Amino acid sequence: MNFRLRELRKLLAKNDLDAILVSSLSNIVYLTNFSEFSTLDRDAYLLITKTKQYIFTHGIYKEAVEKQVPHFELRAIKRETPITKTIRTIIEEQSITRLGFEAFDLKITEYEQLTKQINKKILIPTDMVNKIRIVKSPDETEKIHKACALGDKAFTFILKKMKPGITEKALAFELEFYIKNRGADISFPPIVAFDANASQPHHVPTNVKLKRNSLVLFDFGVKLDNYCSDMTRTVFFGKVTKKQKIVYNTVLAAQQQAIDFINEELKLKKELKASDVDKRAREYTVSQEFPTMPHSLGHGIGIEVHEAPRLTSFSQETLTECMVFSIEPGIYLPEEFGVRIEDLFVVKNDSLVQLTNAPKKLIELKI
Amino acid sequence: MNFRLRELRKLLAKNDLDAILVSSLSNIVYLTNFSEFSTLDRDAYLLITKTKQYIFTHGIYKEAVEKQVPHFELRAIKRETPITKTIRTIIEEQSITRLGFEAFDLKITEYEQLTKQINKKILIPTDMVNKIRIVKSPDETEKIHKACALGDKAFTFILKKMKPGITEKALAFELEFYIKNRGADISFPPIVAFDANASQPHHVPTNVKLKRNSLVLFDFGVKLDNYCSDMTRTVFFGKVTKKQKIVYNTVLAAQQQAIDFINEELKLKKELKASDVDKRAREYTVSQEFPTMPHSLGHGIGIEVHEAPRLTSFSQETLTECMVFSIEPGIYLPEEFGVRIEDLFVVKNDSLVQLTNAPKKLIELKI
Repeated sequence: MNFRLRELRKLLAKNDLDAILVSSLSNIVYLTNFSEFSTLDRDAYLLITKTKQYIFTHGIYKEAVEKQVPHFELRAIKRETPITKTIRTIIEEQSITRLGFEAFDLKITEYEQLTKQINKKILIPTDMVNKIRIVKSPDETEKIHKACALGDKAFTFILKKMKPGITEKALAFELEFYIKNRGADISFPPIVAFDANASQPHHVPTNVKLKRNSLVLFDFGVKLDNYCSDMTRTVFFGKVTKKQKIVYNTVLAAQQQAIDFINEELKLKKELKASDVDKRAREYTVSQEFPTMPHSLGHGIGIEVHEAPRLTSFSQETLTECMVFSIEPGIYLPEEFGVRIEDLFVVKNDSLVQLTNAPKKLIELKI
Repeated sequence: MNFRLRELRKLLAKNDLDAILVSSLSNIVYLTNFSEFSTLDRDAYLLITKTKQYIFTHGIYKEAVEKQVPHFELRAIKRETPITKTIRTIIEEQSITRLGFEAFDLKITEYEQLTKQINKKILIPTDMVNKIRIVKSPDETEKIHKACALGDKAFTFILKKMKPGITEKALAFELEFYIKNRGADISFPPIVAFDANASQPHHVPTNVKLKRNSLVLFDFGVKLDNYCSDMTRTVFFGKVTKKQKIVYNTVLAAQQQAIDFINEELKLKKELKASDVDKRAREYTVSQEFPTMPHSLGHGIGIEVHEAPRLTSFSQETLTECMVFSIEPGIYLPEEFGVRIEDLFVVKNDSLVQLTNAPKKLIELKI
């Protein structure tokens, strides 16, 4: 944690900021390693100055924060002492004239409360904590890798649970149960989609029953020790049709196109634009006369299941050493079916290392 | 749904607004009945004008939204056609000069994107959808009641699962499994706390093992058909100590104080301030020489587990017919134990009806 604060303070200096107010929950988890705040309410803020770090939270978290975040000064959020006044006092005491804040996270109402106490002019929007998080430490990559490994096991498990008549909901529940029973959490509600339902990339599992000779898409992730995994596999319960096979192999080839492109560029030590990777896979599927994906090719992952870098056609980001991201091309044919294949990768020593390891060759399950 | 839109349009007229931009996910669920958007990303906005209603979302939700939200005009969010430009066009076409927006939900960055296209002066902060949601329809109350009934059953179930050596985590998982296995969801991660851990109101379950003669606090909720329940019970696995018994009965009496106070005021047709209810229960526990609660006495509940009205000392709200809320006093003795008892209530025909029905008299489980 101290390393992270040191990095942050270096960036503060570089950006000529005296301090930063952190409101984003994932950034709070990153900087404190404390992950017990609710995702439903605004339970905490951090204020990190050149010399001190403060955590503002409600009385109900006092005991846990004192124990688990001892290196932060705790200031209770109370009606009588609103956080905005406490911040103003600190600003005055430490002569802060440029205070970073997370405009991508802070709400208008919060900003208005803040600017009742603090001069707007000292508030500078910044996403510097996210910028630090984009590059993973070996420890973070290891955590993601462990989450991926449990995801791989969950995939092996779920294939055994497939039987005629089982519903999408039941399979999603089995996945969730498997993961949680092993002390982990899910990184998002699992997607299980049969046949035409798989043409909706974010299909929510229903009570439809599994029939013989069906396509089944699984998209799920594990959260272990605060870090997420994410993977998608499309399998066939029985016989694959000729068209499904062509689509499957096209998606697999599109993923390989992206992987090869990244490896080539890294080898040549070229600047690797995330948008070019998206373009490569997207153009490949279109060249095979399939519709373009209604989603991006991939996304960074870590404490959040979706974070920087974004592999989209309009991304401004460059993929560099120690970034972890998904590559997940898909082809969606409305009213027919959809295929998506998703793996996580890390850039290590100028090449791409795959973190998810479930099999990718077309699976026709015996029924 | 159409009734809700009609109510909203009445409020628009009353507030002299031409339209409202809805960004809050729970308000989107309320107005569309569509609950498949991710809670992790910003996936949708609604724009409701005097005559039309629009839903803005990503391509990945197109098929689901077209099927399930046919009464809204779907406008895809794309890089090429950012939602802010689409909104500007609608504003111009329909001569909108006062547009409500949800300042409590919209982020600074989103607001800045919006005001690049739209004159700031036409944007008026409003929480009118939340204001509508504070009063529940019979249908909504019925849904909450059903969620409560499943919660009651889960409580009966979990008491049977208690045995020496079982961990807080395992009990929390059993609760979650029980609820999800019945086709419902949890409204938040269950809290299970043994002995001293119960002195933290938001304790996160650990691997500590249950011992004989322990206090066990359960705080959990069910989400069924988009509506939440919430309940807390504190039970004793074995013998209760004299002190624990006094604390338990004080908490129970504090809840009864609040209930009686509400019923008396309602009977007298008095204006019932939420802050006065908090005060009554809080002062009672303090009068018994216990510390004041580090949390509010209660909260409204519905699509969100925490919503208006708030039963706090600084609440400005009045409790009226058809509001649903929790009453959950607690006494927390650091390093010793904590007791909280929470039930949900609805105001019906000028009296309080309890929606949760698990037993409240002190339970000493046989071991």
